[in-house]
Amino acid sequence: MEYTFSKLMGQAKSSAVREILKLTQGNSVISFAGGLPAEELFPLEPIRDAYARVFTKGKGVLQYNLTEGFTPLRAKIAERMAKKGMKVTPDEMILTTGSQQSIDLIARVYLDEGDTVLVENPTYLAALQVFQSRGVQVLAVESDEEGMITEDLKAKIAEHKPKMVYVVPTFSNPTGRVWSVERRLGALATCKAANVLILEDDPYGAVQFDGSETYPTIFSLDDHPHGSAVVYTSTFSKTVAPALRTGWVIGDPQVIRMLARAKQSADLHSSATDQQALYELLAGSFSLDEHIELISRNYEERMRFMAGLLRAPEFSGLRFIEPKGGMFIWVELPEGMNSEELMKLAVARGVAFVPGSSFYAGTPRLNTLRMNYTHTDRDTTVLGMERLKAALAELTVTQQG
Amino acid sequence: MEYTFSKLMGQAKSSAVREILKLTQGNSVISFAGGLPAEELFPLEPIRDAYARVFTKGKGVLQYNLTEGFTPLRAKIAERMAKKGMKVTPDEMILTTGSQQSIDLIARVYLDEGDTVLVENPTYLAALQVFQSRGVQVLAVESDEEGMITEDLKAKIAEHKPKMVYVVPTFSNPTGRVWSVERRLGALATCKAANVLILEDDPYGAVQFDGSETYPTIFSLDDHPHGSAVVYTSTFSKTVAPALRTGWVIGDPQVIRMLARAKQSADLHSSATDQQALYELLAGSFSLDEHIELISRNYEERMRFMAGLLRAPEFSGLRFIEPKGGMFIWVELPEGMNSEELMKLAVARGVAFVPGSSFYAGTPRLNTLRMNYTHTDRDTTVLGMERLKAALAELTVTQQG
Repeated sequence: MEYTFSKLMGQAKSSAVREILKLTQGNSVISFAGGLPAEELFPLEPIRDAYARVFTKGKGVLQYNLTEGFTPLRAKIAERMAKKGMKVTPDEMILTTGSQQSIDLIARVYLDEGDTVLVENPTYLAALQVFQSRGVQVLAVESDEEGMITEDLKAKIAEHKPKMVYVVPTFSNPTGRVWSVERRLGALATCKAANVLILEDDPYGAVQFDGSETYPTIFSLDDHPHGSAVVYTSTFSKTVAPALRTGWVIGDPQVIRMLARAKQSADLHSSATDQQALYELLAGSFSLDEHIELISRNYEERMRFMAGLLRAPEFSGLRFIEPKGGMFIWVELPEGMNSEELMKLAVARGVAFVPGSSFYAGTPRLNTLRMNYTHTDRDTTVLGMERLKAALAELTVTQQG
Repeated sequence: MEYTFSKLMGQAKSSAVREILKLTQGNSVISFAGGLPAEELFPLEPIRDAYARVFTKGKGVLQYNLTEGFTPLRAKIAERMAKKGMKVTPDEMILTTGSQQSIDLIARVYLDEGDTVLVENPTYLAALQVFQSRGVQVLAVESDEEGMITEDLKAKIAEHKPKMVYVVPTFSNPTGRVWSVERRLGALATCKAANVLILEDDPYGAVQFDGSETYPTIFSLDDHPHGSAVVYTSTFSKTVAPALRTGWVIGDPQVIRMLARAKQSADLHSSATDQQALYELLAGSFSLDEHIELISRNYEERMRFMAGLLRAPEFSGLRFIEPKGGMFIWVELPEGMNSEELMKLAVARGVAFVPGSSFYAGTPRLNTLRMNYTHTDRDTTVLGMERLKAALAELTVTQQG
């Protein structure tokens, strides 16, 4: 039989990162590619105990649950959101299978084929995939170290009439950047005035190195969720563990109701065992805030360690800025160097990263790459960086030869 | 801010069943509406022990997993499929968040707006929702007690050039019907000849009352999965528990690869804790086959009990056939009676079911309704049926008055 796949999926490319993860699984390639949290820090015992408590509640815990998700967990998340200046009720929230599903569901309910979405440049590649798989036009807004440039956002909105702007304003993937408050306010005012929805994706916001600085979410800068121009999503994947695949979306009840309809079609509801275990975890003696502090201190050390190695003479042509949080260092090779070429040489020598080209909606800057510092231990990181030096030296020779 | 939802979602209706579930949650309405398994039968202790075993394997169990799902669980499911005559490798399988997600992902990779899908009449309403949310035209093929009528399938394929046929051939939702082998072979030959994909949805096949009969899956009647005209999906929701939200799809590796790409965008992967716990459950001393026998015997008793009540003189105008498996009895009221009218009177008296109209792709038969017999205990079933008698009497009086 000849299969005739849908037009949109026929065009879709598999995620470069996922393909690299596959390539490196079970062999000796050291990977700075994935966005994998440090396994050593997973709170295994508290999680194990949380599941055990769930199963003391009787057989009802194994039944179908609400599409919107386990209500007591929504209430717990609402408490946490309130501490960040986001006052929402459980009715203004839906639980998802990680923030990837949040992005996908919002795209379903808000975007039609041919619509336009604006994004930062560069931006999260799996969000680009979602938009492309819906036949949506994705355009990049000029961005710098402070975030999306408000004037360009205004100009692009006027020219292209987008329905949505997708942003990762705090410790972005891939650049690790933090938007200034001014740019946050600029984007909010601009989008509100033009009736454009902002999707604020915040998977990394909690993983912050300098606790004295505060970065208000764009959602918190807007009025009450009723009629808010912002839909906000976050996840427990980076703060608790990815295997539990639990994220959430908050926003206007109208938007949440539409997301619930879309989720009915998509999968009825996400894992109710995981949601109940997360509730038990948050309701018990485990302190998620203390755990997040632990992760943040540890990731800062790892980041500084990798940044130190990147300052070696062999990397002298490279440019990067130490991120203030999150999981990635964004590196620029000397102009004219191609990180995809470097990747091939690197994988042959047993080390992987993600070439930057995957993260661009428009013309990619081919000399960029993303390095993850949260998954490898010190010895492995040193070894990986040595391999990377060798690959870079080889590329330099090739280009000069 | 004014929200402008996507055209397709703007049209989508919420599931009637889910809305009724919401209505009846936490109050005294007895529900024969949902498709909820009997909680008393959930294997709570073996499941609890399975999760406990997962957490003895170290912190790696909490990391991100493959989009295709936990490989050892895929291998275990492949063993179970082989016993049903479906010989597949783990590469010919992807795990999903229940069979609802299987349907949604297959629709994503195979259907474009404006395509046509053929279905049984009546059919699973949440599949109708998936197709409608993609802007797909859904047409009903004439069906009787033996399944889809091959001649009408041929005619509809010739006339409408569908890309896919969606079927629930074993203990269908809503009718409880089982297709004859002849009709299965007829649909397979017809679809293969016309290059039309068959999506075989089999959530209930394992819940069979008369173990001496065998109903081969359409997938098993086709050649090896390579180039198969059939994509098959099933789930642990009815045999283990719904909260774990774990289903699977088997088919040609090309199809599975496309589903994996779609799933990357949709949610990266489903709960890895649930998948690992299911693997431990199947690998341990718990016998899923014995448990399925227990469920099947229990559900047969419940079905016979409800069928007995439906034979009361007050229900003398009703017609139904005792199903040979699954979770539902399909009931026809006397011609001219409207089950949506009955539903309003019934809910007012504290009992709910699903009016049949939701299950039709074409013109609905308004005198039909679906009754679930697996969730209420005997006393509650008796009380619910008494309320239903009263509602029916009231409707009869209203119509005569």
